[in-house]
Amino acid sequence: MARWEPGAGGRLSEAALELFLERGFEQTMVADIAERAGVTARTFFRHFADKREVLFAGASAMEEIALAALESAPPTASALDAITLALDAAAGMIGRDRGFTQKRQAVIMANAELRERELTKLASISATLAGGLRRRGVGDLDASLAAETGVAVYRVAFERWVNATEDGELRDVIRTALAQLRTLAQ
Amino acid sequence: MARWEPGAGGRLSEAALELFLERGFEQTMVADIAERAGVTARTFFRHFADKREVLFAGASAMEEIALAALESAPPTASALDAITLALDAAAGMIGRDRGFTQKRQAVIMANAELRERELTKLASISATLAGGLRRRGVGDLDASLAAETGVAVYRVAFERWVNATEDGELRDVIRTALAQLRTLAQ
Repeated sequence: MARWEPGAGGRLSEAALELFLERGFEQTMVADIAERAGVTARTFFRHFADKREVLFAGASAMEEIALAALESAPPTASALDAITLALDAAAGMIGRDRGFTQKRQAVIMANAELRERELTKLASISATLAGGLRRRGVGDLDASLAAETGVAVYRVAFERWVNATEDGELRDVIRTALAQLRTLAQ
Repeated sequence: MARWEPGAGGRLSEAALELFLERGFEQTMVADIAERAGVTARTFFRHFADKREVLFAGASAMEEIALAALESAPPTASALDAITLALDAAAGMIGRDRGFTQKRQAVIMANAELRERELTKLASISATLAGGLRRRGVGDLDASLAAETGVAVYRVAFERWVNATEDGELRDVIRTALAQLRTLAQ
């Protein structure tokens, strides 16, 4: 975020989400978002490449954070344990602002193109984590399976957490789901 | 397929795949596909809604076949066992023509929009299978976890099978991956 515009990025995100929910993603223009946030369109483009980026700007940061957590796992950690650490880290980032995440999710679910983009994001995270496991010496099949399964568990847990009526930690929901998967797989 | 044009659907599929590989998906027009198959564009549209449908026409059939297999699982089958039967059935359909599937995969991997569509197809299958498990009395979390994990395993197995240099049954690769996941989860 540019230092001479404190909070402009956050205000733009909030304004964009409000408008996407009010009017729909397609019907919202960058000029509308900038106006709602009280900045110029030029300021918008200093923060985001386009309106879709408001929703996906955090994706590459989340991928990096998850990979860093996986890489910091002790050498003795199993593939699935290393993936669990990666998901914990991702959850720590996503879970910070449940209100924002719920609004973002509502916008994405209402638009086929955004749903496809979200699936692509998760597929990219899975490929990155599988790559991280291979660099740790995990075999090819195990790396892919652990990463894909981890992302599958994340999807299930995230959907439960984001739609839950009571508050709770995303990290805990993920842990519960992972434990349940271990039970199912026995 | 229309009875008065035996084989036109198959010829159109083959012609479309050849052209997608030669020229790229975007650059191929329906008229080109029809010409290569030796039929009119009107005949093309009796078989497919658009050129993308040539690649995804089998998706809803695969979803139905997988669901039917899940529903025919004995009542004593676990959630993951029922999913295994569903994946077996899907593999039986996909695995029939590896040459076609390999070409189709090459076309899809070369195009971001098609990759996103493929992910959406798999997400839809996962949701359908989870619904089938719930109707069998499987709990909500278990149903989602088993279906998402099953599709995750399918993705890993499919990618290995489609890129393998030697021949093999997709079903066997899926079974191996599922067994390996059970080991990882222990």
